[in-house]
Amino acid sequence: MVESCDSDLAQRIASGDRRALAQAITLVESSRSDHRATALSLLEQLTSVRREALRIGLSGAPGVGKSTFIEAFGSMLIEAGLRVAVLAVDPSSSRSGGSILGDKTRMEQLSRNPNAFIRPSPSQTRLGGVARRTHEAAVLCEAAGFDAVLIETVGVGQSETLVAEMSDLFVLLIAPGGGDELQGIKRGIMEIADIILVNKADGNLKSAAVRTCADYAQALRLLRPRQQDPEGFPKAMAVSALNEEGLKEAWSEISALDGWRRRYGFRHRRRADQARKWFENEIHRGLVEQVTADRTVRNSMAELGALVAEGKLFPANAAAKLLRQISARLAQ
Amino acid sequence: MVESCDSDLAQRIASGDRRALAQAITLVESSRSDHRATALSLLEQLTSVRREALRIGLSGAPGVGKSTFIEAFGSMLIEAGLRVAVLAVDPSSSRSGGSILGDKTRMEQLSRNPNAFIRPSPSQTRLGGVARRTHEAAVLCEAAGFDAVLIETVGVGQSETLVAEMSDLFVLLIAPGGGDELQGIKRGIMEIADIILVNKADGNLKSAAVRTCADYAQALRLLRPRQQDPEGFPKAMAVSALNEEGLKEAWSEISALDGWRRRYGFRHRRRADQARKWFENEIHRGLVEQVTADRTVRNSMAELGALVAEGKLFPANAAAKLLRQISARLAQ
Repeated sequence: MVESCDSDLAQRIASGDRRALAQAITLVESSRSDHRATALSLLEQLTSVRREALRIGLSGAPGVGKSTFIEAFGSMLIEAGLRVAVLAVDPSSSRSGGSILGDKTRMEQLSRNPNAFIRPSPSQTRLGGVARRTHEAAVLCEAAGFDAVLIETVGVGQSETLVAEMSDLFVLLIAPGGGDELQGIKRGIMEIADIILVNKADGNLKSAAVRTCADYAQALRLLRPRQQDPEGFPKAMAVSALNEEGLKEAWSEISALDGWRRRYGFRHRRRADQARKWFENEIHRGLVEQVTADRTVRNSMAELGALVAEGKLFPANAAAKLLRQISARLAQ
Repeated sequence: MVESCDSDLAQRIASGDRRALAQAITLVESSRSDHRATALSLLEQLTSVRREALRIGLSGAPGVGKSTFIEAFGSMLIEAGLRVAVLAVDPSSSRSGGSILGDKTRMEQLSRNPNAFIRPSPSQTRLGGVARRTHEAAVLCEAAGFDAVLIETVGVGQSETLVAEMSDLFVLLIAPGGGDELQGIKRGIMEIADIILVNKADGNLKSAAVRTCADYAQALRLLRPRQQDPEGFPKAMAVSALNEEGLKEAWSEISALDGWRRRYGFRHRRRADQARKWFENEIHRGLVEQVTADRTVRNSMAELGALVAEGKLFPANAAAKLLRQISARLAQ
């Protein structure tokens, strides 16, 4: 599964070899420490490639037509001459073992296209772990020369924030609906969205989609203007993924926004902020691994953990005791 | 705001003083280190109280009628002679500063009842921080003698898992809808739900609610049986919070499930597992605080952080370098 010679793997990725890319993603998803070391060395070598794709975060609740949209939108980008990678962050994978994009038949046409690369959500026990691997997979896709990386996720909450933290811009896909639903969308999600696409603007739902789009446009005007955006953003548009309508217009707005941000340095600044945050996360994870490698610490932890489980110590108090012990050991 | 004499505060909480409870929750929500020390001491004193409420996790997407349900269900429990606390975990509070339960008028009747205690979601920058504070608030409500603690959250994803991790059982509230929506509910959420309540079984939607309920009952039968559940659980039921119909039946099923689990030790075991997990989380947080208190480490971190931000080092590689430096310092 994994190449022993990672400089060869790095070269194959940089030359756009899809099999090498798939292998490298398997490597970054692995929890084996030898795989991790190889993955780190690979990422280090690829730092010098310095290719950037446009990373588009994409989210929508179940039922809004996300797969149909990605299939149609991705195919359109490929027809326009781009190479497109699709990655996923599945907030439920900690329990179900990963369902987003688990089935490639969800995007049959796109998955068969030689200029597309589709990768399901990694399965990990923690959403943070899923996001970390997906972030590294996005970096690998960039090094392999993809022009656009779509990173999709489902629903409300933390997974959208995590995807926004690895994307250059964020697209929220919604379904046509009444005013109630507009209220239902949390303000926080509106605040991270750069473009809201009201899908299903076709058939019976067309007029509802146009109304919903106007409602969102109204709501977006109530948000305070953002320094990193040109006039008119964030923006709401109606599209039909089914009839492939409005997709070119959506891409044109996405390109306009990204072009503006690159020109004024906002894309670079956003990536720099994101990189710092990933760096901090990695440090935190590593520290825990390092300290719990000590056997005395592990034993204390087990004893205190037993008292906590019996309800004789409150978790935060037990943790405070253990931390004092660790300090004392380090001070020796 | 905060009492200096925390043993007095502990006594007042244990005697059911609502003002003392509110003060104590403000204390656990505070990020000031002196407040934190007082909070830890308070939690330690209250460990000996050993009162247990039934902690009910409750989740539902925007628009399913969560507030109406909590208002009606909570009032019914109070009429039955119970004291009810309502807490919230808001997955969006990292951006919007907390919206769930921010407005007590959402549950006007309940908030005026002397046997109810309603507390909005704490506002913190991280969902993990929100959950940690809410968990401690639930412990304080138990010590204050509340019989039921409802912990609500919104939507799909990580916040539901976090709420499940501090609850004895988990109720999922959904709206009537077609088969599409059934598919849309992620398997993972179904797997943590003990009781699914299809709300709005009234007026025009009554027959749709009954159908949806049957669909979910069917879907639940496809899940593998769980050792900690008696025959017939997890279970789907139709209710109308608006007309206060089906609420007594829902409570009777919740009580039956909890009674069974207590009898066979599953509630105790679940709490023990949860306590261990909170303990581990606290250790992880504390470790990071401890190591980054060292100035040399902080300086290295700033230098590497700058290289990461410029794209000259990949975040995971920079973190690995810093961790090697920390090891070396500790080995001195």
